Order: sequence, then C-alpha cells, then structure tokens
Amino acid sequence: MRNREISKAVISRLPRYYRYLGDLLNSGTERISSGELSQLMKVTASQIRQDLNNFGGFGQQGYGYNVRYLRDEIGKILGLEQNHSMIIIGTGHLGKALANYENFNRGSIRIVGLFDVREEVIGTKVRQTEIRSVNELPVFLKENDVEIAVLTLPKNNAKEVARILVENGIRAIWNFAYTDLNLELPEDVIVENVHLSDSLMQLTYRLHAVENNGQ
Amino acid sequence: MRNREISKAVISRLPRYYRYLGDLLNSGTERISSGELSQLMKVTASQIRQDLNNFGGFGQQGYGYNVRYLRDEIGKILGLEQNHSMIIIGTGHLGKALANYENFNRGSIRIVGLFDVREEVIGTKVRQTEIRSVNELPVFLKENDVEIAVLTLPKNNAKEVARILVENGIRAIWNFAYTDLNLELPEDVIVENVHLSDSLMQLTYRLHAVENNGQ
Repeated sequence: MRNREISKAVISRLPRYYRYLGDLLNSGTERISSGELSQLMKVTASQIRQDLNNFGGFGQQGYGYNVRYLRDEIGKILGLEQNHSMIIIGTGHLGKALANYENFNRGSIRIVGLFDVREEVIGTKVRQTEIRSVNELPVFLKENDVEIAVLTLPKNNAKEVARILVENGIRAIWNFAYTDLNLELPEDVIVENVHLSDSLMQLTYRLHAVENNGQ
Repeated sequence: MRNREISKAVISRLPRYYRYLGDLLNSGTERISSGELSQLMKVTASQIRQDLNNFGGFGQQGYGYNVRYLRDEIGKILGLEQNHSMIIIGTGHLGKALANYENFNRGSIRIVGLFDVREEVIGTKVRQTEIRSVNELPVFLKENDVEIAVLTLPKNNAKEVARILVENGIRAIWNFAYTDLNLELPEDVIVENVHLSDSLMQLTYRLHAVENNGQ
C-alpha cells in the first residue's frame, strides 16, 4: 500500500465512512451499494468509489460493499487495530475530559501519563493516573514508549511544551491549544489540530448570515 | 453583504485568519502583505486575496492589510460582536469542560442553561448554573431566548434531544455526539459537528502511514 500518495482530503473522510458503516452494521445491514451509501452520507457515489479505490476498492460489481468487511478494512487503514500509547499535557477541564474517555479508537489508545505545569495539581490523580510535572517529561519519554501527545493547555505553554516533546522523540501531537504549532515544529511531526473556537465561530457566522439574509 | 454565496470552504478558513491576525496584533504587527500572511499561514497569497474579496477585500494596493482593521472586520463577519445565548445538553466531562470555558467567541457567548438526562446530577450546579432535566427543555425554550444548543451526550440520546430542540425553535446545534444528525433534522438547521474521534483516527492513520513507508 502506498499511503504516501493518499490526499489529506481522502484521509479526512475515512473516519466518517467508518462511522456510517458502524451504524449500518448496528442496524443489521450486511451489504450496501455505493448509491445507497451516497444517499445516506450525502456525498456523490463517484466520490465514494474514488475514495475507496485509493485503497484497492473493496466493492464487487453488482453486489456493492460488504458492510462488515469494508468497515474492518477501513479500521485497519486508520490504525485502529494497533495499540497506541498517549500522554496528556494540561489537565484542566478539557484534559480531564479526554483522560476520562475510555473508548478512543475503539479502545486501542492507552493513556500512559498525565502532565501539568500547575504545582497545585501535580501529585493528584485522574482515575488511577498521577499528574506529573512537565519538568519530568524528558525522563518519562526516555523511559516509556509514547507515540502520541495531547496538548490541552494554553497557547503559549503549548509552543514550549511541543518543542520539548519533539526534542524527546514525540512524532504525533493532538493539539487543542489555540495555535497551529506549524511555525515551531519540524515538518515530519504529525499535528492534528482541534480548534473548538474555530468550530463555534463557523456556527455563529452561519447564524449571522441567516439573519442577514432574512432581513 | 451577500453571505449566501460564500462557500463553506471559505467560511471554514475565516476563524484561522482571525487567529493569525490576533497573534500578529499581539506581537505588535500593524500591517502585513498578502505575501507575508501567505508564508505565515502556509496558504497561497492568491487564496488569501480570493477569500477576503468575498467580503469586499480590505487590502490596499501597495500597503497590504491593516492588521487590526482586518481582524476586527473578520470578527464582525464571524458574529463575534453579537451576543449569543447557548445551552449545553449533557454535563459529563466534556459538557462540563465546555460549561467552564469562559471566553468562547471573545466572551460573546452566554451559557444560559445546562441539561442532563441523569437523575443523579439534576439539581446540582456547574459554576452558578443548575443542571435541569431534559424534560424541562420545551418549557425552558419557550420562556428563554436561546440561539445555540450544544450536544455533549451519547449518540442515541443526541438524535432524540436534537428533535426536541428543533421542535422548540432551536436553529443552531454544536454537536459533539458521534453522529452527524443529518438524517434527523430539517435542512435549515445549522449543525456544526466536532467529532474528536475522527480527528484522533486521522492522527493514527498518519502515524500508521509513516510506519509503513519507513519499512
């Protein structure tokens, strides 16, 4: 498989396929045509065929897609069959919410450490995991096999912490801080940004636009 | 302003412009060319010009953009100068994290109600706001002016609650449940989905892809 050639747009759609196929499976649907899947997901059938052809197709002429097989294959492509270890840096409300979520990637994500800069929370626990000082990060990363770091801390701390993480071997950052980190990090570091504020701004834009058009 | 014609792709980029312009302002930058902004944001200068031309341009030949003016104008377009009232339905860890965040849309979002289905949390408070039963939603929405509802509850509850919200006049939903809600709601209801799981799956896909290419 030559993953390098798959566009970011295709990748961004894979989890959605995975989700819809899971829903179909739960409702007892065993097979589905690209036309039916198209109606359900509100994307064109040709888009679906093109997207899935990137990975070899999976469909059979005149039969459509086997729902379970297709979902499992997409799950493999998304890395859900592999275990990944993750640390969370920043244990405010959002960091705690993520630390308490059990089923990321169908349970294949293991949270192995929590870190914070605030003296008053260091040494306390979330679930069974003790919150450590970010100063311990370099040693912790040397002694433990960590693949993913989650940043749930203020923007300015995020940049500095990201630098430390990358210097100590982290290659994937799930970033919730209000910055893209793109100026600070080497290009081979994988950064997925979740900007909740951006999403809410799009919502209020659309509210605003509807009001203006209604005048 | 003819908002109706602006594409979803352009809208999705506006909060990012707003963020970068805010950073520039904080670092004391008063004006910037589309070329400089392009380098910073890693999008083409022509994309920037095209995006901003949707709203009248804002730039001056030979001068570039006035950072503060441009940021303020984009803020207006995004609805940040208007107050919006919001309720949160589902007060688990994520719902609480959102309820505790003070500065959404630069403080223009007011959280006016919290709701849950779980008997054991109804009547308790998050900050000063009491958690009510979802059964009270219809009456609450009749008596209060609510524009935005946040859904931070399991997928199956989300569909049913979304139906109740829309029946009672809600026209904008910020959805964190693991479903798009697109089958259930009228087309004029604005839904912004935040699927944290999808984002994490893209991250593990990319980790996986790098490992495969490295073999």
